[in-house]
Amino acid sequence: MGGADIERLIALLARLPGLGPRSARRAALALLRQPQARMLPLAQAMEQAARSVRTCSTCGNLDTRDPCAICTDPGRDRGVVCVVETVGDLWALERAGVHRGVYQVLGGTLSALAGTGPDDLNLAPLLARLEAGGVREVILALGATVEGAATTHWLQDRLVGFDVPVSRVGQGLPMGGALDVLDDGTLAAALTARKIHS
Amino acid sequence: MGGADIERLIALLARLPGLGPRSARRAALALLRQPQARMLPLAQAMEQAARSVRTCSTCGNLDTRDPCAICTDPGRDRGVVCVVETVGDLWALERAGVHRGVYQVLGGTLSALAGTGPDDLNLAPLLARLEAGGVREVILALGATVEGAATTHWLQDRLVGFDVPVSRVGQGLPMGGALDVLDDGTLAAALTARKIHS
Ligand SMILES: [Zn+2]
Ligand SMILES: [Zn+2]
Repeated sequence: MGGADIERLIALLARLPGLGPRSARRAALALLRQPQARMLPLAQAMEQAARSVRTCSTCGNLDTRDPCAICTDPGRDRGVVCVVETVGDLWALERAGVHRGVYQVLGGTLSALAGTGPDDLNLAPLLARLEAGGVREVILALGATVEGAATTHWLQDRLVGFDVPVSRVGQGLPMGGALDVLDDGTLAAALTARKIHS
Repeated sequence: MGGADIERLIALLARLPGLGPRSARRAALALLRQPQARMLPLAQAMEQAARSVRTCSTCGNLDTRDPCAICTDPGRDRGVVCVVETVGDLWALERAGVHRGVYQVLGGTLSALAGTGPDDLNLAPLLARLEAGGVREVILALGATVEGAATTHWLQDRLVGFDVPVSRVGQGLPMGGALDVLDDGTLAAALTARKIHS
């Protein structure tokens, strides 16, 4: 139905989160109708991003520079580190505009099911920052899932030796909810109502 | 939040039908996490399709060759032409596997609101085929919308001089429904229960 090139385009689009086979076909058609105005610009934006975007070695954010724009922003408080699961969670907090410190992106949670252990989490840069001194608070902003809660508890234990207050966002997170699907108000409330752990 | 390259990627993805700003961010993140395995292959599939895909000058289908695979398939009955609004409708009928003839893609419907008149419809190739002879039936398979119905009536009048039976799919199309969101069974029923007009 239109040749292997179209089939391949639809199959790859259908693998994007949020696009099923039907919406992938609709998206492919919309692109095919405007190859110059729509399809090529998107293809070039993808290639440009694939070339330029890297993981920040300090915090785990994605940016075209390393360290990222947040880590190098002189207006941000490097003494307050907010720990999140994913870059999507970091983006959600940035959109909400409620955190003026910096971040640590773990890249996941502890999960027996997924086979994710402590060594799989991007924690070393945070430990290095804590050892270097200057960090006055660590905010744990993991999702209110079983794995998020387990990871929060494990981090609270892991960080107790650094003599730095460890808070966690508590109020406002609906049970079972991931961070990056919450509205800005809920995120702001959760961050404001954080509890100091140690 | 990740640089202009990421913002641009998200903005272009958000313009795809079926993807809003939130799902565009999720799609961008999924691609950014696997630039080599996911983003570059999709970008290359888009460039390849933009280069290779053209509109069939016989029927209006999209394919890498002109005439398209359907128009050149010796197993298809060139005597039965099914008229549809869009390539998406053609694809829907092909997936349902209920039409063994060929197609004419109008590229739209008559619409005062959209300013689409008879000259904007891709009808000339069908008229040429009718004049050349060999067409035994024209099936009108336009959507059951106000514009689809108006276009169906206009086509019935327009084609009356060719002395070829003009049928239209009638039963099975829910009112107000576009063709390409229907399940295969409904499409098959609508095509089977078509009515001969002249
Ligand atoms: Zn960073
Ligand atoms: Zn064709």
